[in-house]
Amino acid sequence: MRTTLLRRHLTASPYTLPPTIRQLLSSTTYNSSNEANVTVTGWIKSIRRQKRVSFAVVSDGTTSAGLQAVFPNSSLVPKELTNGASVKLRGRLGKSLGAGQEKELVVKDVEVLGLCDPETYPIQKQALSHEFLRDNVHLRTRTTSVAAMLRLRHALQRELSFYLEQQGFIHVHTPLLTSNDAEGAGETFKLAKITEKASNLGKTDVILTDALSHPEQDDEFFGRPAHLTVSAQLHLESFQAAISRVWTLSPSFRAERSQTSRHLSEFWMLEAEWGDLPVGTPDTGVRGICTFVEGMIRAAVKNVLEAPDTKADIDVSWGPTVDEKLDLKTERRQEMEKAVFGNGRWNIMTYGDAILALEEEYERQRRDGRTQFEFKPAWGKSLQSEHEKWLAEVMIGGPVFVIDYPLESKPFYMRVNDFDGERQTAACFDLLVPGVGELVGGSVREEREDVLLQRMKEVGLWTEENGLGHYEWYMDLRRYGGSPHVGFGMGFERLVSWVGGIENVRECVPMPRWAGRLLL
Amino acid sequence: MRTTLLRRHLTASPYTLPPTIRQLLSSTTYNSSNEANVTVTGWIKSIRRQKRVSFAVVSDGTTSAGLQAVFPNSSLVPKELTNGASVKLRGRLGKSLGAGQEKELVVKDVEVLGLCDPETYPIQKQALSHEFLRDNVHLRTRTTSVAAMLRLRHALQRELSFYLEQQGFIHVHTPLLTSNDAEGAGETFKLAKITEKASNLGKTDVILTDALSHPEQDDEFFGRPAHLTVSAQLHLESFQAAISRVWTLSPSFRAERSQTSRHLSEFWMLEAEWGDLPVGTPDTGVRGICTFVEGMIRAAVKNVLEAPDTKADIDVSWGPTVDEKLDLKTERRQEMEKAVFGNGRWNIMTYGDAILALEEEYERQRRDGRTQFEFKPAWGKSLQSEHEKWLAEVMIGGPVFVIDYPLESKPFYMRVNDFDGERQTAACFDLLVPGVGELVGGSVREEREDVLLQRMKEVGLWTEENGLGHYEWYMDLRRYGGSPHVGFGMGFERLVSWVGGIENVRECVPMPRWAGRLLL
Repeated sequence: MRTTLLRRHLTASPYTLPPTIRQLLSSTTYNSSNEANVTVTGWIKSIRRQKRVSFAVVSDGTTSAGLQAVFPNSSLVPKELTNGASVKLRGRLGKSLGAGQEKELVVKDVEVLGLCDPETYPIQKQALSHEFLRDNVHLRTRTTSVAAMLRLRHALQRELSFYLEQQGFIHVHTPLLTSNDAEGAGETFKLAKITEKASNLGKTDVILTDALSHPEQDDEFFGRPAHLTVSAQLHLESFQAAISRVWTLSPSFRAERSQTSRHLSEFWMLEAEWGDLPVGTPDTGVRGICTFVEGMIRAAVKNVLEAPDTKADIDVSWGPTVDEKLDLKTERRQEMEKAVFGNGRWNIMTYGDAILALEEEYERQRRDGRTQFEFKPAWGKSLQSEHEKWLAEVMIGGPVFVIDYPLESKPFYMRVNDFDGERQTAACFDLLVPGVGELVGGSVREEREDVLLQRMKEVGLWTEENGLGHYEWYMDLRRYGGSPHVGFGMGFERLVSWVGGIENVRECVPMPRWAGRLLL
Repeated sequence: MRTTLLRRHLTASPYTLPPTIRQLLSSTTYNSSNEANVTVTGWIKSIRRQKRVSFAVVSDGTTSAGLQAVFPNSSLVPKELTNGASVKLRGRLGKSLGAGQEKELVVKDVEVLGLCDPETYPIQKQALSHEFLRDNVHLRTRTTSVAAMLRLRHALQRELSFYLEQQGFIHVHTPLLTSNDAEGAGETFKLAKITEKASNLGKTDVILTDALSHPEQDDEFFGRPAHLTVSAQLHLESFQAAISRVWTLSPSFRAERSQTSRHLSEFWMLEAEWGDLPVGTPDTGVRGICTFVEGMIRAAVKNVLEAPDTKADIDVSWGPTVDEKLDLKTERRQEMEKAVFGNGRWNIMTYGDAILALEEEYERQRRDGRTQFEFKPAWGKSLQSEHEKWLAEVMIGGPVFVIDYPLESKPFYMRVNDFDGERQTAACFDLLVPGVGELVGGSVREEREDVLLQRMKEVGLWTEENGLGHYEWYMDLRRYGGSPHVGFGMGFERLVSWVGGIENVRECVPMPRWAGRLLL
């Protein structure tokens, strides 16, 4: 249905670009019984020169397959057609005579647009290490796997946008510069003070005279310290309090030095805030959010896995790369597909139950002389990455929502659960998935003014002198028609990692940034 | 067609949220002949208490209209139902008995979710000034106009995404932290150095021991200075060199103190890079880009103007606000709609011709004793904002592409035109529109290695000592299979300003930031 929609629009426009290789290969206009003259621009992925006929695979990066190009007369193939060279090919697209592809291009005319020295070209044909490609991040998109990852990101974003649109959400662009710090915990990047110079004042000739009257000075450009956002949540809550269902997919920043396969200094996060819970479930409170999140991820990923053009990309990204255990990858992929297509609902367990299970496992490990867990699990302590992975990978073998964490370990904005007579918890959840760990975190937001104020006092956001200071606006959202609402944040690179089977998030983002690494 | 698609998906999901007011009002499931029990959550926009029956307009922010709620028994309407209060209403949705709306909700049951003190509530019913609302940015989305603007942004983004998808583009998330500065001209925000503290190292208990071995130090987190991006272009070019057609919609930052109605410190820009030009036009080079850009904007804006749900938002955003000249607004709206729906192609003129026209106008003004232009136009000088507006508003009365600017005023990456025997120009364009001025800027990119190197030397990016230094990677894109390509950047707030008739870009972004202003 979507394909029809895309095609309809494509023909309608008089301003249309020529079809890409993906469009040519998937289009029914250029099918086996209907040869057509086409022009294709792309890069040589491989070339096989034979005595009479030569073959090349040409990619424009829009599909993982590439286009099979046949040169009927080898003597007319320019010597400049080497791996990586940019070419424009004109010819007839029709049914392929060879195996391995449906269509092929019989080339009539070649134009070399850009040479590529095969000796020095960094993207050689043999498998290249992730580290080498990270060092050559400006060219790594030429590899089949990085290009497939970019298309996968694109497809996931498209399907998530689509799903949220249907559910009545508005996509809002939250600011990245902020005077707040949503989590309190995470270290933020701060802007340097500005040294004012004449050039600040604009490009025009005349305004330079004005500049002379400004003495050079060091100051805060915004009149107060400015940080890069660690989460759009508080801003989203302000929009939620007026247009009900809002989301954003935008960069977040953490100035943390952790060098793990799951952390980046600049990462993309899908965050949403809304009021009503799904109507198709008896679940309320935090369990209702889990239902919604499960529905969203399943629907979006299902569409990506089912569309023929993106399925090929998934096959590439799950394919073997340097140094990976294929058995485990196959198992992970099956788990992921079962989670998306299976009939069963995803598991929900309380933090309390998770701790009990982890404590038992810890004892078992000790008894059996295994030392898998570095950290001893205990009520009140954070779940370590190793605990999260064990819960999802070993205990459940699929996604699992852990809900109702201890209140004192959670931020002030999470709703306080009714006291169960023993322990104080927050109405929050983390979604854990195999291979990745925490994929989504969210909560019911504290909408009660008195409870929220109490919590903000506890974490030191209220002082005798300044009251709530910069956070006064956040309380206003409760004072003036506040209403119950919920929200979550999903690490977009972690979603790509889970769906695409890509081990390190540094390969899940176009240009990764981490402590000590800022190329380009 | 799109509506059908949305509805299909909506019913398919078992995880669906209840319908929003927009969905209820536009749905055929709840039509006049088919009353239905519904539950609605929203905020009171106005309330009229009569002796027997009472009426309220309730908005959940998803539509500019709001829902007419009828309370058959005034004595049962709680006194807490004041403007801004959050309520949940249950009742029968059916054909309205009153004029002004098709449907109304006959309320059976009211639940007040959040009170709103009508005395102190900042969003009063009378018209509020833009300045007052900017000071109350956390609550201004409750106004009809700001909510309509957010929905307009959302709709424009959706339609542009849709159009670019059909044209074979991949949406790429370019990094915001960078070691480059794409324009050289614009002042960038720089990150402050990081003072390393124990808390940087993570949340776990045990890792604190590690922290003690790190002395406190001041350093560059990334080992080099980091800036906030002023443009995604150079990064996009790296992806274009592998996947052919790429775009992004992401924030850009300028540390400039200009306080105009067209500038923000943090603004959103749609940028695209690609290789092939449209096939439906004889135009090549920069004229081909103009064709593409015209096609993209017309298609996207047309879809927004034609969809009933967004048309209502446009009507709101073009509506009268404080201190605006309505005659001029009406004229501007007509120009905009003509540009989108008219048959004629948008005008293209060279910078040389534009200067000639401006010089003539300048002379006319002098002769007639008018002093409209502050700056005297002359070949080689930048077009001032007043010049751009005159060209689009007075001379053309609609959008106009100005192409082939003097080379020396343009960045190094723009393609050098063949020398015309007199003056050296670049293959670039600006799209000027009435009321806004520059909406889009773009160019053919310089793909010739030798010419590019010469240009980079001219602007000082090459030194004897370091060669191209940090820009070496950019030359690699030409060295290894470089190919002709083009690109543009469109200020998203300016598009919203043009389409929505919103005078100041501070009202075109959810939370505006400018020199001295960083709320929330």
